Amino acid sequence: MTMTKLANATLFDLKTGLSEEETSKKRFLTDMEKLFNDTETLQKELDAGNNPMIYEYYALDLPKTEGDIQYGTSIVYPGTLGGEYYMTKGHFHEILETGEVYFCMSGQGYMLMENPEGEWEIEELVPGRAVQVPPRYAHRSINTGNEPLVTFFTFRADAGHDYGSIETKGYRKLVVERNGKPEIIDNPKWQQ
Amino acid sequence: MTMTKLANATLFDLKTGLSEEETSKKRFLTDMEKLFNDTETLQKELDAGNNPMIYEYYALDLPKTEGDIQYGTSIVYPGTLGGEYYMTKGHFHEILETGEVYFCMSGQGYMLMENPEGEWEIEELVPGRAVQVPPRYAHRSINTGNEPLVTFFTFRADAGHDYGSIETKGYRKLVVERNGKPEIIDNPKWQQ
Repeated sequence: MTMTKLANATLFDLKTGLSEEETSKKRFLTDMEKLFNDTETLQKELDAGNNPMIYEYYALDLPKTEGDIQYGTSIVYPGTLGGEYYMTKGHFHEILETGEVYFCMSGQGYMLMENPEGEWEIEELVPGRAVQVPPRYAHRSINTGNEPLVTFFTFRADAGHDYGSIETKGYRKLVVERNGKPEIIDNPKWQQ
Repeated sequence: MTMTKLANATLFDLKTGLSEEETSKKRFLTDMEKLFNDTETLQKELDAGNNPMIYEYYALDLPKTEGDIQYGTSIVYPGTLGGEYYMTKGHFHEILETGEVYFCMSGQGYMLMENPEGEWEIEELVPGRAVQVPPRYAHRSINTGNEPLVTFFTFRADAGHDYGSIETKGYRKLVVERNGKPEIIDNPKWQQ
């Protein structure tokens, strides 16, 4: 009898979140042109030849049934662009009624969430803090610290990712640096 | 407008897995009478007044819809009973077609899995290793090291727990200490 191995496992570095066994997806400033608020500063950076990696994450090739749980790590690097902290693009799930859990392994920042009805929530990410993103909520990790913000995430494997809604409408709220501290402000460019 | 906060978060100690914000469920030797193989040694321990905590975990009061992801930590303490390593009871999900993800934070051991069809799998747990338990598989954490085995777990929030099947039939395989090292053996008491 041939054994069909169904379980799988991946080794990550608990501090950096990186895995030598898999290849991460990397998101650079050029991938975030529609996401950062200050497009003028962004363009200046690109014109000057600066295209830093903003974040990377693992999208593992695992079963995508509604009974499986998908996992991976996300690493958002420290920095700001026009006062706005480095962050992930943020996404809804294609199956809108599914949530996600983020477990912070190192660094510090926020999980910013909003639903299509206009409600929004924010939770702090510090090492050891688990945040449960409710169904229907788009979610974005924001690094407000000086080291990489590393999270371990899990979601229903059939959830799917909708990045387009955020790229088109933007987030209602932004997290920016004011006097060296994070502040939540309304997004002046947000489109109803 | 009153804000209905849907997101939630819990702070765990990354090393010990414990949370000061929540109360864990504690499982002592008396809770494991049907689980350890060597019932004679187990009874001697209890007769001698020894009732150590074998493991503890968090069952948080969170939404239980099919779209939510439930999370918590599990801490299995080091030790053996009649040569068998300390372990969790192990459980199937009531919704059998749902899996689970365990992310090891500290310690070392194994995730032992079996399905109703008689197939079994085992994956090593070391710090930073994430193990995806497939749907249909009962799963048990086993501590083969000298310090607590700490994992962060997530599963579909409506999955439910079936502990009875394992308590009645037992696991097909046991992990025991032989010459100071873990060895997987057939469970002599396993019932078809």
